[in-house]
Amino acid sequence: MGLLHYPVYNKNHETIASAITTFDLHDCSRLAKTYGVKTFFVITPLADQQELARRVLKHWTVGHGAEYNWTRKEALELMAVSPSLDACIDEIMRREAEKPVLIVTDASRRKAPGLTYEQAKGMVTADKAILLLFGTAWGLVDEVMDMADYLLDPVEGYTDYNHLSVRSAAAIILDRLAGR
Amino acid sequence: MGLLHYPVYNKNHETIASAITTFDLHDCSRLAKTYGVKTFFVITPLADQQELARRVLKHWTVGHGAEYNWTRKEALELMAVSPSLDACIDEIMRREAEKPVLIVTDASRRKAPGLTYEQAKGMVTADKAILLLFGTAWGLVDEVMDMADYLLDPVEGYTDYNHLSVRSAAAIILDRLAGR
Repeated sequence: MGLLHYPVYNKNHETIASAITTFDLHDCSRLAKTYGVKTFFVITPLADQQELARRVLKHWTVGHGAEYNWTRKEALELMAVSPSLDACIDEIMRREAEKPVLIVTDASRRKAPGLTYEQAKGMVTADKAILLLFGTAWGLVDEVMDMADYLLDPVEGYTDYNHLSVRSAAAIILDRLAGR
Repeated sequence: MGLLHYPVYNKNHETIASAITTFDLHDCSRLAKTYGVKTFFVITPLADQQELARRVLKHWTVGHGAEYNWTRKEALELMAVSPSLDACIDEIMRREAEKPVLIVTDASRRKAPGLTYEQAKGMVTADKAILLLFGTAWGLVDEVMDMADYLLDPVEGYTDYNHLSVRSAAAIILDRLAGR
């Protein structure tokens, strides 16, 4: 599972590097731990942002923080920092000895044919190496969408409102793909 | 849907009033909007915490904030502040002209018989007035559990780790009860 901070769109559809939200790190790490995700990659090219993510990681996995809250330690131990999407894919290839299937997510864009939750769940069950990629800010840029093997169908709720936080979307999608 | 800040347990199983996390307000409001929840009640007896919630609400629903981000405005308009669980239930009775079924959630406690997601979904579909209550900090105190009509089965992921943030749990539960 990856959380991409660059390249993503801002509100004005310009390509930017977004800032890390520490709540994302905690929530997504806990989701990864709950749903059996091997690694949660925080992807950002910015050195100070990488440093921030590593500081959160260290605070909760070493020393006082680890003693204070072991459930946070267990979750954050699944987190890794990666400088780019390519580097992240290379890292997964090194670990898994196969190229991961790149599945991207988007709140409003839809491809025909897209990837249904049932199809995606089938891939998870088949034990393929998969990189499930979430965008921050106003979402993944077109170039990243074009790199993907599949675009997962958007989360649909009860209404047509489709503006969840990436934390909420990740929770729902992981539950749909790997929940009991 | 309600988010209870008092009475809840702290790490040492003492009854406390927890502090509001503003991320909870945003994420839960957006979830409420997505899944057709009528009102998201932020429940706290602390005057300064009620004020904090109202300030967030006002910032994003009136004036500059509302213009800057209308999706946030639409979501936060569903948020209401309530001083206690009893007051929240009274308010729902006034609005709905019926006593809401109180469904509580807990990450680890399980009742026999509990309430399955299928059963709960049936209640949602039957258009009953329901208050779906989430606890903050280390969870709802026993007295609140005892008041409840039903305890929803815990969210189970792919592993036995059950330490999601309340934001993530709310996302998953709403999707299971009202997702398409």
